[in-house]
Amino acid sequence: MSDPQTVPGRIMAAEMAEQPAVLQRILDEGAPKIREIAAEIAGRNPRFVLLTARGTSDNAALYAKYLIEVLLGKPAGLTSMSTTTAYGAKPDLRDCLVVTVSQSGGSPDLVASTKAAREAGAITLAVTNNAGSPLAEVSEFHIDVLAGPEKALPATKTYTAELLALYLFVEGLRGGDGSAAKALPGLAAGVLERQAEVKSLAERYRFAQRLVITSRGYGYPTAREAALKLMETTYIPASPFSGADLLHGPLAMVDNVSPVIAIVPDGKGGEALQPVLDRLRGRGADLVVIGQEAQVEAASAGFALPAGVPEEVQPILEILPLQLLAYEVTIARGQDPDAPRALAKVTETH
Amino acid sequence: MSDPQTVPGRIMAAEMAEQPAVLQRILDEGAPKIREIAAEIAGRNPRFVLLTARGTSDNAALYAKYLIEVLLGKPAGLTSMSTTTAYGAKPDLRDCLVVTVSQSGGSPDLVASTKAAREAGAITLAVTNNAGSPLAEVSEFHIDVLAGPEKALPATKTYTAELLALYLFVEGLRGGDGSAAKALPGLAAGVLERQAEVKSLAERYRFAQRLVITSRGYGYPTAREAALKLMETTYIPASPFSGADLLHGPLAMVDNVSPVIAIVPDGKGGEALQPVLDRLRGRGADLVVIGQEAQVEAASAGFALPAGVPEEVQPILEILPLQLLAYEVTIARGQDPDAPRALAKVTETH
Repeated sequence: MSDPQTVPGRIMAAEMAEQPAVLQRILDEGAPKIREIAAEIAGRNPRFVLLTARGTSDNAALYAKYLIEVLLGKPAGLTSMSTTTAYGAKPDLRDCLVVTVSQSGGSPDLVASTKAAREAGAITLAVTNNAGSPLAEVSEFHIDVLAGPEKALPATKTYTAELLALYLFVEGLRGGDGSAAKALPGLAAGVLERQAEVKSLAERYRFAQRLVITSRGYGYPTAREAALKLMETTYIPASPFSGADLLHGPLAMVDNVSPVIAIVPDGKGGEALQPVLDRLRGRGADLVVIGQEAQVEAASAGFALPAGVPEEVQPILEILPLQLLAYEVTIARGQDPDAPRALAKVTETH
Repeated sequence: MSDPQTVPGRIMAAEMAEQPAVLQRILDEGAPKIREIAAEIAGRNPRFVLLTARGTSDNAALYAKYLIEVLLGKPAGLTSMSTTTAYGAKPDLRDCLVVTVSQSGGSPDLVASTKAAREAGAITLAVTNNAGSPLAEVSEFHIDVLAGPEKALPATKTYTAELLALYLFVEGLRGGDGSAAKALPGLAAGVLERQAEVKSLAERYRFAQRLVITSRGYGYPTAREAALKLMETTYIPASPFSGADLLHGPLAMVDNVSPVIAIVPDGKGGEALQPVLDRLRGRGADLVVIGQEAQVEAASAGFALPAGVPEEVQPILEILPLQLLAYEVTIARGQDPDAPRALAKVTETH
C-alpha cells in the first residue's frame, strides 16, 4: 500500500470530505452573526449591489448576483477590478453595497478595490475564510465562512462555504429565515458518499481533449466553477456557457467528439435549459447531466441530485459531484490534484 | 479559378472588409443622433448602468462597461437575463439606465428583458443594427449602428460598429467630443490591408487543439470576442481569461502545447498585463501578442497595432487581426467560415 502522506490528491480529498461539517458549522455558529450584519446593512437600504472577486470566489459572487436579483429584487453587477486598480476610476458608490468575496482575503487588488469602494461611499462587506486578513481589515463588515484552513490548491470547501454564507446573508437582507439551507449538510454528505458513481463517470473523460459545460439560471455559476475546477486540475480546456449563449455561436464547437456536461437545476433554470438540451441531443452530443433524475435518465449518463431541494440552494449540492469529477479525472490521468502546475494558494494580482 | 459565388468565407471576408466604411458612416451620419440621445439621457442623470446582451454583442456590452466605469465614474453591471425571463425577478430600476445591445434586435429574451426593465422604471436604450426591430420598438431610445445587413454567421462588422456607437454614446454622456475616434476608419483600413501577415500567423494554429486568450482592462472584451470568433469558426476551444484570473488557477493549463494569444493594450491595461506576460514567458508558453510593437517583438510572434491611439478606442482596432485570424485558420483547416455548424443568424433564446 502507498504511504497515505504521499497519495496523490489526499489534501483535496480530505477538504472535499469536510464540506458537510463546514456547512453545519456555518448554520450553527456563523448564521447568527450573518443575520446581524444583514439586518444592519438592510437598515441602510442599499439600492445597488456590486460583487468583487476572482477565480473560484468569482463564481460564488455570481451565485450571489442571482440571489440578489431574484430574491431581493435589487440590480447587481460584477466588478471589473482593473477599472479601479489600473485606470483609477472613481465611481460614485453612494447607495451601493460592495461585497468582496475571497478565500484568503489577501490578494492586493481585491484589498485596493474594496478600500477604494469604501472611500467612494459604498457599504463594504468582505466574505472571507480569514478574519485576520487585510481584506477583512479594510471592509466595514466581515463575514467569516468558517471553513478552516484550506491547504489544497483547488478550492473546494471554501467555495461551498462561500455559497452558503452568501445565501444566508441575502436571506438576512430580506428578513427570511434561511430554512431552505437546513437540510444541506446531510444532503451533501449523501452526495459525497456516492464517489464510486463519479469515478465511473470519470472514465468517460480519461482521453477527452475538450469539454463544454452548460446550465442556466442558478446553475450557471456551477457550470463556471466546474469548468474552472476541471481546468485547474485535469488541464482539459473546459468552456462554460450559459445555455442561451451556447446557442448564439459556440454550439458549432459541439459535436460527437466534444462532450457536454449540463447542470440541470430542478426548477425554472432547468426548464429554461430544456431547448438547449433538445438541440444538443439533436446534434448527437455526448451529454452528461448533473441534476434532476429524469434528465439524467434521458441523457448519455449523469449524476442525479436529491429531489425536493429549493432551487436557490441547489448550487451548494450541484458542485459536489463536479469537484469529485475533477479529482477523479485527474487521478485517472496519472496527475496529482494537490499539485497543479503553476498554482500558488494566495495569488497576488495587482 | 473557383467560382467567386462559392469561395469559402467570401461573405465573412466581404463584411470584414466593409468595416472602415461602416466606422466612417457612424462618425458622419450616426454621431449627431447619438450625441442627441446621450444628452437627453445625461439630463436624467442615471446613477447605475446595466448592460444586456448575448454572444458577440455581450462582448461589446462589456467594453461599454469599462467605458462607463472609467470615463463616466458610474457603477455598471451586466444583466443576468434569466433572472427576469426565467425567474420573473422584478428589480427596482429607478435611476438605472439599461442598455440592450443586439445586432438583430430580434431575440425574444432580450426584448422581454428590456420591456420588463422599462416597466420597472429604467431608462432603456437599444443599440442595434435594425431600426425596425422589436427591441428598438420596446426601448425608449434607439441607436442604429448603421452597419448594413449582416449576412455572415460570424458577426464582424456589427461588433466594431457596436463598439464605436457605444464609445460615442458614453462620450456624449460625459459631454466629450469623441475626437479619439476620428482616425479609426483610416487606421482600420491599414490593419485590414495586412491580411498576409495574419495568414502567416494562422499557420501556427493549423493543428492547435486549444487556445488561451488573455488581456486586461480595455483589452479584455477583445480577448472574449476573439475566443468566441475562433470557437464559432475554427471549433478550437479557446478560453478567454483576464490576466489576473489566469494567474488564479487556469495557468495550470498553459504549457508548451497550449498556445497563448495576449492582447496587449498600449496603456494601463498593457502595463497591468506585464506580470502575466512575464509568467507566461517563464513557463515557456508559445505567446502571440496583438498590440504594442515592442511587446510583439518580445513575443514568439504577433501583430503590431498602430501606435498613438487612445487606449479607450484601441479595442475597435484590436479585434480586426483576430477576426482575420479566425477566418484564416478556418480556411487553413479546410472549413467554411460562412457555414459554421449549427449557427442560425437570429438566435431565438427565451
